[in-house]
This record gives sequence, C-alpha cells and structure tokens, in this order.
Amino acid sequence: MDNKESLGAEISLMTPVWVIGSYDKAGKANMMTAAWVGICCSKPPCVTVSLRKARYTYHNIIGRKAFTVNIPSKNYIKETDYFGIVSGKEVDKLAATGLTPIKGDYVDAPYIKEFPVAVECKLVNTLELGLHTMFIGEIMDVKADKTTGDNKEALLNMLIYDPKNRNYYSVGEKSGKAFSIGKEITNSQTEGGR
Amino acid sequence: MDNKESLGAEISLMTPVWVIGSYDKAGKANMMTAAWVGICCSKPPCVTVSLRKARYTYHNIIGRKAFTVNIPSKNYIKETDYFGIVSGKEVDKLAATGLTPIKGDYVDAPYIKEFPVAVECKLVNTLELGLHTMFIGEIMDVKADKTTGDNKEALLNMLIYDPKNRNYYSVGEKSGKAFSIGKEITNSQTEGGR
Repeated sequence: MDNKESLGAEISLMTPVWVIGSYDKAGKANMMTAAWVGICCSKPPCVTVSLRKARYTYHNIIGRKAFTVNIPSKNYIKETDYFGIVSGKEVDKLAATGLTPIKGDYVDAPYIKEFPVAVECKLVNTLELGLHTMFIGEIMDVKADKTTGDNKEALLNMLIYDPKNRNYYSVGEKSGKAFSIGKEITNSQTEGGR
Repeated sequence: MDNKESLGAEISLMTPVWVIGSYDKAGKANMMTAAWVGICCSKPPCVTVSLRKARYTYHNIIGRKAFTVNIPSKNYIKETDYFGIVSGKEVDKLAATGLTPIKGDYVDAPYIKEFPVAVECKLVNTLELGLHTMFIGEIMDVKADKTTGDNKEALLNMLIYDPKNRNYYSVGEKSGKAFSIGKEITNSQTEGGR
C-alpha cells in the first residue's frame, strides 16, 4: 500500500463537464449536464455519455437517435449547473436561462448558440451498465466559435468536475507538448529510441 | 450555423490523461498513456478506456482481465508523455523512468507508487468500436496519496489533453460549487423550485 491510503470503490476522478442537447417527443429542446462522459474511438470518431434512465434526456436520445455535446466555458458555469439541477420534465430550461437552441445540421438534436463548442452526435450504440446506461455517439460535426489563429481557442474552454467534492474547475496553464516532452527520457537511454 | 464554424467530424474535445497499468504474459509491468477515457457508471462504479489492438496493453488487459488507472500530476508530465511514445513490446518503461510498479491489492495489474492516485479495475466488458476497442473496468479500489484535510488534494491532480493541438494542460482554479451555483437561476424564476 506504500504511501497511499485506500478510499474504497468510489468515483473520485476528475472528469469533463458536457451539456447534452436533445429534443423531446413534442420537439422541445432540452439540455442536461453530464460528467460521466468521454472520447472512445478515433475512426469513426465517437464519444460516450452515460445517463440514468430516470433522466428526461434518456428518452429523448432513444427517441431521436441523436444528441449534441455542448462545451461550456466558465462564463456559463451558472447555466451549466442549472442544467444539472432541474429536469426538462418540469421546466423549459433554455427559456429559463435565455440561451438559444439551434437545430443541428446533421442530426435531430439542438445545440446551444452561445456556448463555444457544439458537437453533433448520431446514436450508434447503447449499453446497460447498472445505474447508468451508456450511449455511444458518432461525431458527425464539430462547431466552434470563430476565433482567430490556428489554436481554435474555443476548443480550450472547458469545465472540469470533481465528483468527490462536487466542485467545478477551469482549465489551467499549458504544461507541455504531447509526443514531445517525453522524448527527453527516450533520448537519455543508452538503448535509444523506438 | 450562427457564430460558429464547422470543423468537420473530428476529435477535438479536451480529455483527461490517464496512465494504464497492466502485466504481460511474463509478468512484466507496463504503463501506457490513454486519453480516450471516461467515467461511465456510478453503481457499479465503472470507467472506459479505449485502445487500439496494436497496443501492447490491449493484449495484457485481455489476458489478465484487469488494469489500473494512474492519475499523473504535472510533476510527472515527462514520464506520462514517454509512456505514450514508446511501446512496452520493446522497452521496460518503468525501468526507463525509474518509477515503481506495485501489484494491486484487488486485481492482477500494477499501479505506480509515485503517482498521486491509482484506481484498480476489473475488466467487465469489451466493445469493438472501429479503430479502438473499449474496455469497461469496474473500480475495485481507489488509492490516493495520504494528504491532510478532507479535500484529498491528490485527487485534484490531473493533466488534460488537447488532441487538436497535442498539448497538455493542468487543472486551473476552482470555478464554483456544483448543485449550488445554478440555484441562482432556479430561484430567480417565478415558477420557482424543482
């Protein structure tokens, strides 16, 4: 056990915060906040979003075979948290926040005009895991705020969720270049290289 | 399309960086860096890790039905990047970095002594998605550096990967309290409440 202590079988890893867009049967746009999410394949490009069956969004995604992933910047932290607190069964959350739903170009789901990034996803697989059901969505398009330069700053906006303490964090400083900074170790070895 | 521009069907969302620990047939501990990862269920607590079949770790996980998730702090950014650059087929990556593998208490996979957080996972499902195969691991135990206070600072150490520009970022400042900051919107509505 060395220098560590056991915390048991819990969820305590920090995770991205995504806002999931969908339409209900009547065509009302809904948004809910999800953190049990991730990227899962490069070709075809796919993401996972896990939801409880009790969620309004669950039935919307099953019905329309589509959802969007909307990436909130910290400017929209209140709206993002609100989307996770109330249910679309009872409230028109977009009307309540004043944010604007726009129908996707490629899938039957709405994205948020004001958020910096939106990803249109087609439902390609569903897996029952226990309390949560995992939806696998194939990315049909990524839309980002028009920003100057090659870095697409919009894509760097993100909130991170700490499930243990229930806090949101923003992204910090650039720490290093991937597939690059580790070469210092490769180069220092006498065996050398790949 | 409003204020956004289409970037096409690409992977450009920022994602956590995890280091996946496994044993090969001979019992050699190996670590590889993965970013196509996520949390996917609360009960049982589960995570996803997606790998290409060409990866050494792929066969290790199939063979031992187990892996660990090791969370690097930015102090170990070089080692983390190195684990993603070279293959365990050719190199003993732990020996090269000087980091220490410790056998898990609950599963047949090694974790890194020096990293702040280690999660022991039992393989419970495998899903072919295309270029990547998704492994679903049930969390059997979380181990974190012994830190003072209730916040378990070790759990807040994380690197975030920007796949579009291939850069690592660290976690930034606390931005707000979840299930709390959004209540300002709920309370401001005349409909009131949930």
